[in-house]
Amino acid sequence: MQFEILKKDPKSGARLGQVITSHGAFRTPAFIPVGTQATVKAMTPEELRGMGAEIILSNTYHLYLRPGHELIRRMGGLHRFMHWNYPLLTDSGGFQVFSLNSLAKVTGEGAHFQSHLDGSRHFLSPEKAIAIQQALGADIIMCLDECTAYPASHEEAARSLELTLDWARRCKESHGSQDQALFGIVQGGMHSDLRRRAAETLAAIGFDGYAIGGLSVGESKEAMFQIVADTAPLLPQDRPRYLMGVGLPGDILEAVRHGVDMFDCVLPTRNARNGTLFTRSGKIVIKKAQYAEDPLPIEPGCPCYACRHYSRAYLRHLYQAEEILALRLNTIHNLHFYLQFMNDMRKAIAEDRFEAFGQEFHARWVSGDEPSSEGRESFPAHPVLRNRISNNSSENLCRSSRRNVKNQQGGKFDVQ
Amino acid sequence: MQFEILKKDPKSGARLGQVITSHGAFRTPAFIPVGTQATVKAMTPEELRGMGAEIILSNTYHLYLRPGHELIRRMGGLHRFMHWNYPLLTDSGGFQVFSLNSLAKVTGEGAHFQSHLDGSRHFLSPEKAIAIQQALGADIIMCLDECTAYPASHEEAARSLELTLDWARRCKESHGSQDQALFGIVQGGMHSDLRRRAAETLAAIGFDGYAIGGLSVGESKEAMFQIVADTAPLLPQDRPRYLMGVGLPGDILEAVRHGVDMFDCVLPTRNARNGTLFTRSGKIVIKKAQYAEDPLPIEPGCPCYACRHYSRAYLRHLYQAEEILALRLNTIHNLHFYLQFMNDMRKAIAEDRFEAFGQEFHARWVSGDEPSSEGRESFPAHPVLRNRISNNSSENLCRSSRRNVKNQQGGKFDVQ
Repeated sequence: MQFEILKKDPKSGARLGQVITSHGAFRTPAFIPVGTQATVKAMTPEELRGMGAEIILSNTYHLYLRPGHELIRRMGGLHRFMHWNYPLLTDSGGFQVFSLNSLAKVTGEGAHFQSHLDGSRHFLSPEKAIAIQQALGADIIMCLDECTAYPASHEEAARSLELTLDWARRCKESHGSQDQALFGIVQGGMHSDLRRRAAETLAAIGFDGYAIGGLSVGESKEAMFQIVADTAPLLPQDRPRYLMGVGLPGDILEAVRHGVDMFDCVLPTRNARNGTLFTRSGKIVIKKAQYAEDPLPIEPGCPCYACRHYSRAYLRHLYQAEEILALRLNTIHNLHFYLQFMNDMRKAIAEDRFEAFGQEFHARWVSGDEPSSEGRESFPAHPVLRNRISNNSSENLCRSSRRNVKNQQGGKFDVQ
Repeated sequence: MQFEILKKDPKSGARLGQVITSHGAFRTPAFIPVGTQATVKAMTPEELRGMGAEIILSNTYHLYLRPGHELIRRMGGLHRFMHWNYPLLTDSGGFQVFSLNSLAKVTGEGAHFQSHLDGSRHFLSPEKAIAIQQALGADIIMCLDECTAYPASHEEAARSLELTLDWARRCKESHGSQDQALFGIVQGGMHSDLRRRAAETLAAIGFDGYAIGGLSVGESKEAMFQIVADTAPLLPQDRPRYLMGVGLPGDILEAVRHGVDMFDCVLPTRNARNGTLFTRSGKIVIKKAQYAEDPLPIEPGCPCYACRHYSRAYLRHLYQAEEILALRLNTIHNLHFYLQFMNDMRKAIAEDRFEAFGQEFHARWVSGDEPSSEGRESFPAHPVLRNRISNNSSENLCRSSRRNVKNQQGGKFDVQ
């Protein structure tokens, strides 16, 4: 994997670049749509490419449990299995192990957990996380880390961080493949000194890229951005930086300003399936009665397929009627919005007007109830019914939402 | 509306033709995908056209209740609302009124019924059925008929038929539009003399086309084809004949042999969402363990999008994981199969080898448990959950399946 920085914004930490993998390049700052179970919900790979997706993410935890990483290896690897012949990233599975299992038991060796599908017992170690990700064959893979609970005292966060750093070393050691880039993950809770220790230790071990984990777990936005602002500059300049599970467009903008290059989040896709649609002025809830006879597209002037051909009235009808096409059109629009936003941001950096771009964005955007309510409204009240296709289950939530699940449901499965 | 017969099979009643509407032509024999709620579930119009759909159907009952025919009229009509600028047919709403309402009360004037959505009370008369369909603006609309119960004595069927014929006269009288073709519907139960009386009376009233209704309601296949064989030749030669709600490919083949030109059925789309896929050798159930590592496409050689890019193993995974993409890919394949089947059949008629085509079809096709089990397995055990997109609700079943619903569920709503 190569990372090229094409331009640095003179007035902020923002960087324009590209990452070259064995399945092609993606431009940074990059937004990574989430395809938890080897599919970005409701989308085909062609549609994703058509709206500008250059890299997508799949979740190791889910694929390990179903259909199994060895099966995917035998089918030619994840790219081939899911018909996505472009850059692909997998996480380590650790986040799901911890967030979906109130009974997950962590030892120095690894984590014991139960499947959210059938309760079967499993063990995930750093070595196994790497082996599973090697079987899947993504271009970028992640170290197993322990997600520090929030809030965590300095002592707790420090103890947790030492485990994460030990696991990072073991991941690096067990990882031999040249085809797969391995990223380390910075933990340390809300403690800047621990974040610094993590960044320096991981840089000394040496990874192909560095992620900032353990954020958007319930802390304030100010606290989150403080950690990002403190941590990002400590990470090696010549490697991509990845802020996991964040976030709203404004959050991404702020993190880019501090020098972050990669983002993933389920907000655009999950919101789409809940009928919440992104526009340049903020979010709209399509089921509202005010759209019942609205002949306008979601966002006038938007060139996405949904906006070119369908009225808000029709989209509201589809949503109210619980039609599958509602999920498709809403997802197309929201992903298009995010990917267009990243494209515009890259263009702004290239043209030395990143700051003005940010000001224009904030001037237009009107915040609603966000972001912690995002996840909650979407959760089905009942376990997934067989013979019904799930709307919301089995896709990662952004960190904040995930935490809400855990709080509300006692760590039970149902949703991921 | 014009109907041109391009060729008649010398050895059977099969006809090759085309129907020209104000939104373009469709070739016959034609299969009409069902788009109950102003969308063929999981498909875009572009996908439908791409796989060869030339006409689709929407259900008046559903659109009248939600979002309302007057809203659709104000939004520019159904074609524009749903972004389908090609031939479109609506039914009268009568079938749903009777099949979804165990308490529907029929008088000479019309039918009183309650909404399956909210229990609100409504009244549907022949004049209102026409007015609603005029507001929707489909190219082909249907007379309101009473669906004779099965089994029905000669006396019951005769009484029901007289009502249907009276309603047909009233529909014709209240229908003034030149842009919309109006079809009459032959009823008469399993009684050939009544079917004859219906055909002759409707022909005397004069319609743009003639449908055969009240079949596939629980009778044997032999009985059904006897009625089709008796009735079709009695219908005007120069008008299209439409067998409503039928059926499996072999059923369509047999009805074409007797001179039927048009068919609609939810089998390809509903089966797709239940994971049952059509191949030239019969149906396969994709969730079976035997497909877990099967690298083949659904049907080797099939040029549909699903078969070109995805293995049975991946499709099984998507289905087991309850992914929306499973619905899409399965629907694409099944509709492609049906539309390709119709295309092959038309080619066979054109080339004077319709009989051989039928023999080849039957030689390959291996029947499974069909067709009455089709509908049953698909019904959700619970009412539709809000915030979850329905897999099976709100799409018409083929007649046989609908009857099963009624038998099993006491005419309750939930499914249509």
